[in-house]
Amino acid sequence: MIPRLYIKQSLAVGAIVPADERALHYLRNVMRRATGDPLVLFNGRDGEFEAEIASLDKRKGALKVTRLRRTQDSVPDLVLCFAPLKKDAVDFLVEKATELGVAAFQPVMTRRTAASRLNIDRLRANAIEAAEQTERLTIPEVRAPISFDTLVSSWEPTRHIILCAEAGPALPIADALKALTLHVRAPNAWAILCGPEGGFHVSELDRLRTLPFVTPVGLGPRILRADTAALTALAVFQAILGDGTLRPPHPMMPIGTGADGAE
Amino acid sequence: MIPRLYIKQSLAVGAIVPADERALHYLRNVMRRATGDPLVLFNGRDGEFEAEIASLDKRKGALKVTRLRRTQDSVPDLVLCFAPLKKDAVDFLVEKATELGVAAFQPVMTRRTAASRLNIDRLRANAIEAAEQTERLTIPEVRAPISFDTLVSSWEPTRHIILCAEAGPALPIADALKALTLHVRAPNAWAILCGPEGGFHVSELDRLRTLPFVTPVGLGPRILRADTAALTALAVFQAILGDGTLRPPHPMMPIGTGADGAE
Repeated sequence: MIPRLYIKQSLAVGAIVPADERALHYLRNVMRRATGDPLVLFNGRDGEFEAEIASLDKRKGALKVTRLRRTQDSVPDLVLCFAPLKKDAVDFLVEKATELGVAAFQPVMTRRTAASRLNIDRLRANAIEAAEQTERLTIPEVRAPISFDTLVSSWEPTRHIILCAEAGPALPIADALKALTLHVRAPNAWAILCGPEGGFHVSELDRLRTLPFVTPVGLGPRILRADTAALTALAVFQAILGDGTLRPPHPMMPIGTGADGAE
Repeated sequence: MIPRLYIKQSLAVGAIVPADERALHYLRNVMRRATGDPLVLFNGRDGEFEAEIASLDKRKGALKVTRLRRTQDSVPDLVLCFAPLKKDAVDFLVEKATELGVAAFQPVMTRRTAASRLNIDRLRANAIEAAEQTERLTIPEVRAPISFDTLVSSWEPTRHIILCAEAGPALPIADALKALTLHVRAPNAWAILCGPEGGFHVSELDRLRTLPFVTPVGLGPRILRADTAALTALAVFQAILGDGTLRPPHPMMPIGTGADGAE
């Protein structure tokens, strides 16, 4: 397996970039690679490149960029606003939502939010790892938590909110998204907003329902856990309004791993 | 929180049913409940009932069924055929797919399936727990693993397969599902088929593509992990072809836990 690494430095064919601490640890200690071994690099801006290890020792390493593999792409402008959950659930949510192409995560402290602490650095690390492992070319932004009040009062009205609403009136999500493609102007900036376990407080839901840029949607007859609801809304969004009509840009596995189906 | 338990016995108002070993352990040791405490029972056939603990000691318990809470419902006839994955991924898949209303799980051993052992009893326990915690009224069936060859050669052609296909020609899933609603006869029996990490072997994909009851679908431009792909397909299926237009039958939380939004 050829390692695929996110790195912050600028990338261009011919460049030699220093391995940062994370890359050094991963290549040496986790993957046990050595000088001359191939890897794939991306930085979220310059595209994806084939590279090789020019040098590697305990303290530093250099990576030589050899070939452009894919030009930079982007994901739909979709922010996932979620109430922090228990550790396992939020780790899972960040990993899966990164795979599903969310552009940014916005934690929101609601009245019923139980998890009081949120390790943003860990979530960022999870997002990077998920992007690395699933051929994504960008890293989603993980924002600092804000209160529900701040979220609502500072919201930019041109960004439309798809509200996961288990209770009260709501269109089924597929119908709601189809209607939004027809009716909303400036339909290129979106958010999905999901509540905590136990749901939004009724006062929060009432406030959201008065806002012209909020569309409550239903996710079917079962009560979904908060993380499941967020991912369901995201999957359906990408299929109907997002980039679900695109295909993977190249065969499913990295260079040299049998992408042609040979064994 | 009022415990909600799946139980195998028949249920009807007025009945007193013995607590099975699992119910006994859960009520006594996990939830520390005692005689007179309320609970909710369902068995996948008779509906959902309010009940109370008639007696409970170390060795046995009796549960008195007091009131019908919901009449029995069902989920769409959708089988999720998946190649066994690593323990965490398959546990997660069973939990989330149960929430999302899959009717049955069919593990399939493909050429590239890495996980050789699959603890079916553990998966069944996970499915029961997910159903209990998310207000589902049925328990999905977890079938014994079969080989890819057996799956294909014994398939009932009236059940249509939605094939998650990362490589090769495929319609975007939303378009494919909409087309299926228009063209397929007997559209009430469905399956989603997802490959292992690394995907199907090319010979398996070639074989699947020759079958008239298989529709390959695309899930967007990113490479999804196997469990993410299965859940994405399931979420979009329910939204477009399944029961996604229905709403939860009652407020979001069990009786007595503040479902009306009061604190």
